Amino acid sequence: MQLLLLSNSSSPQGFLTHALPDIRQWAGPAPENASVLFVPYAGVTRTWDEYETLVADALRPTGLAVRSLHREAAPLAAIAGATHIVVGGGNTFALVRQLRQTGQLAAIAERVRSGGARYLGWSAGANLACPRLCTSNDMPIVDPLGFDTLGLVPFQINPHYTEAHPEGHRGETRQQRLREFALLNPGVPVLGLPEGTGVRIDGDSRTLLGDPQTPARWFTGVQAPALLPMGSWKS
Amino acid sequence: MQLLLLSNSSSPQGFLTHALPDIRQWAGPAPENASVLFVPYAGVTRTWDEYETLVADALRPTGLAVRSLHREAAPLAAIAGATHIVVGGGNTFALVRQLRQTGQLAAIAERVRSGGARYLGWSAGANLACPRLCTSNDMPIVDPLGFDTLGLVPFQINPHYTEAHPEGHRGETRQQRLREFALLNPGVPVLGLPEGTGVRIDGDSRTLLGDPQTPARWFTGVQAPALLPMGSWKS
Repeated sequence: MQLLLLSNSSSPQGFLTHALPDIRQWAGPAPENASVLFVPYAGVTRTWDEYETLVADALRPTGLAVRSLHREAAPLAAIAGATHIVVGGGNTFALVRQLRQTGQLAAIAERVRSGGARYLGWSAGANLACPRLCTSNDMPIVDPLGFDTLGLVPFQINPHYTEAHPEGHRGETRQQRLREFALLNPGVPVLGLPEGTGVRIDGDSRTLLGDPQTPARWFTGVQAPALLPMGSWKS
Repeated sequence: MQLLLLSNSSSPQGFLTHALPDIRQWAGPAPENASVLFVPYAGVTRTWDEYETLVADALRPTGLAVRSLHREAAPLAAIAGATHIVVGGGNTFALVRQLRQTGQLAAIAERVRSGGARYLGWSAGANLACPRLCTSNDMPIVDPLGFDTLGLVPFQINPHYTEAHPEGHRGETRQQRLREFALLNPGVPVLGLPEGTGVRIDGDSRTLLGDPQTPARWFTGVQAPALLPMGSWKS
């Protein structure tokens, strides 16, 4: 499988700008002849049409054309024929509900697992690639009708990973939340991806991408996470 | 119904200390002769035994005795006979899963709705009193096996309500999250309860409790929320 899973999309430079070199590498040869099938369903406050335009504009420098799944008359056929599937961030629960209700969740999993399509996702789109949606940071604004997701990787991802905590706030820190996950889900590791970072999976090879000053975190239990340096990653 | 729904439990003064005057008022006459049935299932990093001790110690000044539901040999009978049900905070998903799997969710709803038991909940315990768990801030660490909850009040609560946002963090603000909820759940209002505040429901009367400097927020759609002053509340 060819996967690129990013913590986030926006950056001071612009939407997806920080990730364009990695997206070019992920896209493979001749991206100017390729078309991306974009999944906009995590978008809630922006419309799916607006989200398609935003992503098409952002990916234009790579040569990749973009078409949103919500405009396909035969979405399952579009998935079965896609070579590049891109899943945008937003609300993970809204994303999973829409994909499950339409049968598109299983279709995407099958297409990517078979090697037919490369997969790029950020934020909710990175959560979607994991076994379950359990390490999303999002508010559960709708019932996802089940917690299992694509299962493209054998670990969970926590996007927007941070150790910051607003002063005076008495809710849990991110580490506390992930320790609670570890307690109830023993044996399931979690990759914490700070803003601006990501993971590239190319067959059996895994590489962590981003600023060397912001290592990823690897939670394998209730103890404090290990720091994972950027670069080649052997877990 | 007699309900007391609090944003949070911990305070600089100690566990539940800030809420003791309101808890005394909620407990009704002769609390020294009453026993609280405590629901500890939202606790994940603390054990249910530890949680029972913590709450028993915290409520001692009110005269209320505390017994945890997890130690009852016949939990459904214990719920059916309870006069005071107290649901602690922690992880809403873990709480709802345990209550649903055991049939205790429906039993608690019936007992409180019938007027047989008073209900106190903080954080996840306040979320539980709402129609659905959709406005929890918690990480979805386990599948709650459905999103409906007790439905004791006709609105949603967002506990630990804050407008703070860690600098450089590119996830959603709380207002953005609640606007997303409003977009996908039109007509369902949300009460944002800042730290230290709560709502007391005594039959048809509703009162907002807490520091007058920290008004509650009332979201009825995608626009900015209304500020609700502490004190008698007519919505």
